[in-house]
Amino acid sequence: MDKIKENDTVELTNGKDRFFIKIEKGKVYSTHLGNINHDDIIGKEWGDTIQTHSGHNFILIKPSLYDIIMYAIKRQTQIIYPKDSGYITLKLGLRNGMKVLESGIGSGALTIVMANALYPDGRIYAYEKEEKFLNNALKNIQLAGFENTVNAFIFDLANPLPEKNFDAAFIDVREPWLYLDNIKEALKKGAPIGFLLPTTNQVIELLKGLKNHGFINIEVQELFVRDYKPIFDRFRPEDRMVAHTGYLIFAKKGF
Amino acid sequence: MDKIKENDTVELTNGKDRFFIKIEKGKVYSTHLGNINHDDIIGKEWGDTIQTHSGHNFILIKPSLYDIIMYAIKRQTQIIYPKDSGYITLKLGLRNGMKVLESGIGSGALTIVMANALYPDGRIYAYEKEEKFLNNALKNIQLAGFENTVNAFIFDLANPLPEKNFDAAFIDVREPWLYLDNIKEALKKGAPIGFLLPTTNQVIELLKGLKNHGFINIEVQELFVRDYKPIFDRFRPEDRMVAHTGYLIFAKKGF
Amino acid sequence: MDKIKENDTVELTNGKDRFFIKIEKGKVYSTHLGNINHDDIIGKEWGDTIQTHSGHNFILIKPSLYDIIMYAIKRQTQIIYPKDSGYITLKLGLRNGMKVLESGIGSGALTIVMANALYPDGRIYAYEKEEKFLNNALKNIQLAGFENTVNAFIFDLANPLPEKNFDAAFIDVREPWLYLDNIKEALKKGAPIGFLLPTTNQVIELLKGLKNHGFINIEVQELFVRDYKPIFDRFRPEDRMVAHTGYLIFAKKGF
Amino acid sequence: MDKIKENDTVELTNGKDRFFIKIEKGKVYSTHLGNINHDDIIGKEWGDTIQTHSGHNFILIKPSLYDIIMYAIKRQTQIIYPKDSGYITLKLGLRNGMKVLESGIGSGALTIVMANALYPDGRIYAYEKEEKFLNNALKNIQLAGFENTVNAFIFDLANPLPEKNFDAAFIDVREPWLYLDNIKEALKKGAPIGFLLPTTNQVIELLKGLKNHGFINIEVQELFVRDYKPIFDRFRPEDRMVAHTGYLIFAKKGF
Repeated sequence: MDKIKENDTVELTNGKDRFFIKIEKGKVYSTHLGNINHDDIIGKEWGDTIQTHSGHNFILIKPSLYDIIMYAIKRQTQIIYPKDSGYITLKLGLRNGMKVLESGIGSGALTIVMANALYPDGRIYAYEKEEKFLNNALKNIQLAGFENTVNAFIFDLANPLPEKNFDAAFIDVREPWLYLDNIKEALKKGAPIGFLLPTTNQVIELLKGLKNHGFINIEVQELFVRDYKPIFDRFRPEDRMVAHTGYLIFAKKGF
Repeated sequence: MDKIKENDTVELTNGKDRFFIKIEKGKVYSTHLGNINHDDIIGKEWGDTIQTHSGHNFILIKPSLYDIIMYAIKRQTQIIYPKDSGYITLKLGLRNGMKVLESGIGSGALTIVMANALYPDGRIYAYEKEEKFLNNALKNIQLAGFENTVNAFIFDLANPLPEKNFDAAFIDVREPWLYLDNIKEALKKGAPIGFLLPTTNQVIELLKGLKNHGFINIEVQELFVRDYKPIFDRFRPEDRMVAHTGYLIFAKKGF
Repeated sequence: MDKIKENDTVELTNGKDRFFIKIEKGKVYSTHLGNINHDDIIGKEWGDTIQTHSGHNFILIKPSLYDIIMYAIKRQTQIIYPKDSGYITLKLGLRNGMKVLESGIGSGALTIVMANALYPDGRIYAYEKEEKFLNNALKNIQLAGFENTVNAFIFDLANPLPEKNFDAAFIDVREPWLYLDNIKEALKKGAPIGFLLPTTNQVIELLKGLKNHGFINIEVQELFVRDYKPIFDRFRPEDRMVAHTGYLIFAKKGF
Repeated sequence: MDKIKENDTVELTNGKDRFFIKIEKGKVYSTHLGNINHDDIIGKEWGDTIQTHSGHNFILIKPSLYDIIMYAIKRQTQIIYPKDSGYITLKLGLRNGMKVLESGIGSGALTIVMANALYPDGRIYAYEKEEKFLNNALKNIQLAGFENTVNAFIFDLANPLPEKNFDAAFIDVREPWLYLDNIKEALKKGAPIGFLLPTTNQVIELLKGLKNHGFINIEVQELFVRDYKPIFDRFRPEDRMVAHTGYLIFAKKGF
């Protein structure tokens, strides 16, 4: 792994406090444990230690995709969380070289995870109706370093897609059943497709649509994460958890 | 995506039946809907249709990583399931170019998913005590096409690791707390590490060990998948579900 | 607690094997650990020990309501499980003296649990369309000792109810939204009502109906039980669990 | 059901707002929808309507046990929630006439639910170390109307129990494994016993103790409630849920 340079996002941790900093020449970052000059971080290696002006040590960590998605990107929409996006990537079989349809792009959180799986030869074609979402998502994708893996467009799925022959697709829009003709036409036969929908009413509409459009291998799933208190002599689950983000629906284009 | 050739694993589906075939010249595959010559599949494109000798059509699908792990690989051990492996990959921040420690290799199911995230420049160093597991895992890794991303060794973690400076690690052994000195020494500072353990007793021992060895950002989590019957007019959860595969423990190497 | 007499249901346990026997004079019960004469059990106290003719000891246990429902009653329908029926009883506020509407009666599993909460002065009016279900349920209710707390009728909810002024109700039929006029008319103002439905489509229809009929305090809930392996040095969840029995819907009659 | 009288707890609901009032002669209850004289409620029937001085209608509802436990009792401790207490009552097989051991009494939430199942001839012997908890719990038990079903004592389980021959027991103390000798001695053979413990470490200690003391039919379980948004055209789970209150452990006294 290379040295830390301008525009990199760096996690500073002392085991208790965690800060995420985007490195810019000449800037100073202030914490309750003292200040750090961005310039002093440039050129260091990942894993090196840096000291604040008041003598506190922090490790310089390359943020994981998980941390980038959860803490570093700017959210303008509800994001698809890592519990779901890691699984989606596997269910869609994403790997190097594939050509993937995504719509909408939201804040780009899923786009980043999918891009990592397609890297370096694959491409995501991301179609988004709202210009402000697209612009924000592209900044987030750049922050994660995948700007060359994503082609993004202002586009409404109500129209036939300009690109065809997709190996896989993920659709995160409110009424995906309205666009199944256009989506199906753009997919290779047998190509896997995924959807995320928050309500059972939407899932029911989509299941009708998928059946009517001849999709096969239809599945609906939910994923949950349960956190535990990591204390060795009082090991127990946390009191509360996220109970719902959305239903995942998977299918494949049939004949 | 390229054409189907010898040694590829192909999914044949008609929307109801699914078969996974490894293509070998001259072979015949028999189903209750008729026979198919492997030679007739070679040269077809992914997504093409093939007909059995008795006139039934099947689509030729490139199996997803999910399907390879769940249906195509040969299991000699309990595997790490996609619900967990997709998430592990994100929590460890795996991406192109990283150098990753894995031990044991099991049947290679997690290795395949991690290799996909590291591709093409990253490397997994997989250490496994049991030769029979290693040999089987390597066959599975080759089936998935990641033989160049994995270096595998017969090795016992009770010894100091021959490789150092790992960017991340995943440890799936019965008593990982015994090896934390050796593992820690091989990791970069700040590097993320994950573990999977089935019992609370093991988690408790590991939490003690991680604390004593100065690991930071310690977390324990469980993931669940709930399946639904995908029927639009009787949409409801399946009657039964997998309730436990293992606890996931994540941490980072501290100072 | 009194002595064991004819017609009592007795659990015999040695800590490993469990048998449920309905005591009948002159009968012999055979196990792989030897035979027991029913007559030798009559007159013993609950908690006493009995020996098979081949010298193995069993404790005579009064079966709990849980055990009666799960193991002793004869099932002709899907039953409402203890995880749900204990909760339903609390949500409906059932206690001594209340007059409760139930329909259908199924196999009587919920009826037994509700009767226990109403005992001795309360009454359940159970309306069931199918004579064979009613007859079986009444036998089960008698087995549990609540025959004086339940009045059961062959009756179709499509007709106005002959009894009125109910303090609470539980409705377990396929299309409860069809009968809300008749049910509402039979309830006291403010009276709590519960429903169990397996599919989201049914819940959606019922929610529409409850809103249109002016019901208030509407809630939908699901309950889960997760079992653990009770082994002190390998304490962990069981591999599989029941994922769905039904959605519980609660409301109160409004103005 | 009788008329509303002094000292009754009444729920006032208009379908949106809910208030719980303990009726005291001469008092006035103020809401943002106007005032209500307690004296105007006395003599009304459950289900009747009352109007505030500014003309808003409320239904007078007899609070369910669920509502008493969740909203009306005064809590000085973490309570055992209805999702658990309804189930505990069934697992312990509580019904009219049984003699039940409880320790500690906490805020009396479980005591109330158990008392309802034992009514009218059963008795709970509740042993509590802390006088302030006992006094508060007794007030709550009286509020629910079960003061004649509960005998409560200041008592430490480290001493042999003054009462013997219990039909069932529920123990909610921090280190129950320390008292298993005394508890066992006070139980009938075959009697069911339950425990609630928040951490896995405690469960592990208890499992050891139960095994060493010859308890049989040992089980460990967790219960979950998942709430849904009760909206017919956007039916979906709530965003968050309670993930943990405690592990339930059940067993029976062996030979």
